[in-house]
Amino acid sequence: MSSESPVSGPAPAVILVNPQLGENIGTAARAMANFGLSEMHIVDPRDGWPSERAIKAASGADRVIENANVTATCEEAIAPFNRVYATTARPRGMTKQVMTPEQAAADMHTRIANGERVAVMFGRERWGLNNDEVALADVIVTAPVDPKFASINIAQAVLLVGYEWYKPVAKSLGMGTEQLPAMDGPGLKVRGGEGLATKQDLQGLFDHLEGELEAAGFFKSPNMRPVMVRNMRNMFQRIELSLQEVRAVRGIIASLTRTHLRKRQRGGEEGSGD
Amino acid sequence: MSSESPVSGPAPAVILVNPQLGENIGTAARAMANFGLSEMHIVDPRDGWPSERAIKAASGADRVIENANVTATCEEAIAPFNRVYATTARPRGMTKQVMTPEQAAADMHTRIANGERVAVMFGRERWGLNNDEVALADVIVTAPVDPKFASINIAQAVLLVGYEWYKPVAKSLGMGTEQLPAMDGPGLKVRGGEGLATKQDLQGLFDHLEGELEAAGFFKSPNMRPVMVRNMRNMFQRIELSLQEVRAVRGIIASLTRTHLRKRQRGGEEGSGD
Repeated sequence: MSSESPVSGPAPAVILVNPQLGENIGTAARAMANFGLSEMHIVDPRDGWPSERAIKAASGADRVIENANVTATCEEAIAPFNRVYATTARPRGMTKQVMTPEQAAADMHTRIANGERVAVMFGRERWGLNNDEVALADVIVTAPVDPKFASINIAQAVLLVGYEWYKPVAKSLGMGTEQLPAMDGPGLKVRGGEGLATKQDLQGLFDHLEGELEAAGFFKSPNMRPVMVRNMRNMFQRIELSLQEVRAVRGIIASLTRTHLRKRQRGGEEGSGD
Repeated sequence: MSSESPVSGPAPAVILVNPQLGENIGTAARAMANFGLSEMHIVDPRDGWPSERAIKAASGADRVIENANVTATCEEAIAPFNRVYATTARPRGMTKQVMTPEQAAADMHTRIANGERVAVMFGRERWGLNNDEVALADVIVTAPVDPKFASINIAQAVLLVGYEWYKPVAKSLGMGTEQLPAMDGPGLKVRGGEGLATKQDLQGLFDHLEGELEAAGFFKSPNMRPVMVRNMRNMFQRIELSLQEVRAVRGIIASLTRTHLRKRQRGGEEGSGD
């Protein structure tokens, strides 16, 4: 799916995770159109798809709705992207970079200029993204809000991210008289040259590693498994692996799982072959 | 006056002019509460007042709704204020100062610190403020939006102004990650509480991993070994592991090296995991 923005070339995609109300999908589409965003992915919309209510609430941003890509899982939705941002009402105590919408927008501009594809996840109305969904992301985006009233409507969250994304675009178009704050990036690191792995590459690595650990009896108690998996995934997200590095890590895993086998083979026993 | 803390001190009032739908009044109230605004004035609400729909849509921002001041005319609503801003989709060709929400917020902070009372007017859903209403204001506020889709929902407009108003407030409260330059790491941020591993911990991990890979025949050629080791070490440096994570990774390595051994112990019925 193309992420061409009508205004300025590639732009971030918006991923709505398990949205409950068609109205909110529509309002989010409208907010996207206000700021030159056009690529929407919807994960498991509660009330089905297509949605008349979504189209009605989009107030003319029909194109965004019509072109929306619907998937069953978050993993499918994020697969094509190099970098994923998760919006949350507050930081979750995960060891992940936390950015304001403004900082995230600066980061997105840098990444996209570098040829990466980026997407922002927004959670369901009632309780946002769950921890497993947040764990899929590279960066947490949290707007500074009054802590006494921190719950932001899903379309409002899309609006803030879109607004910050569009500010420098508008400036480059000579619109407004914006005095832009440090838009050339707060010292964020960019992996030169090397291509960042896509989420699909990373998911392949997770499946591989978790499968081997399962087989090895690493997850001693089923209760602990989700937390252990989440921590591992967060750790690997943080490292921002290139595709080459994903392959290297998988080579390491494959090699390690053969260690003792080889030892035994050298001791004269027959291996089971892999 | 100006010595009051920004959060409990005076803040801009919001004036909704002739709003059509209770839902939008409620969503606007919620957006206000998100950003520490509490003073709402409503001029001639089309569907009367009080509004059950407004309260429902406020999602808990009831206090804003309950305390709203309803007037028949714009003139009455703006009477107590020293400075009034009018939000419009685009500048109206009036000889009036035009500001972005960001600039307007900076201006409001200056004015309020000076003891002035300020208010922002938002127009009805269909066509915004009319020219006579805009003429009542000192400043026009226009957000940079895609000119091809410039119509912003009333609550969204309130949100953008509130968001820009609250940014410096949050900053003064030390909240948020506003300043958050990635100075303490290559794009990595906020390791809550956890201690970073020492280089000794890390060296222990390297010795463990490289020893196992050596045993597994991972380093096919002795010439390549130094480069491969360096790449792996760089990768693990980049991740900035805590001591706890170093232990977890070593647990993973130990577990993986036992994989095939365990399979064989169980009778060799299972296939290989890679």
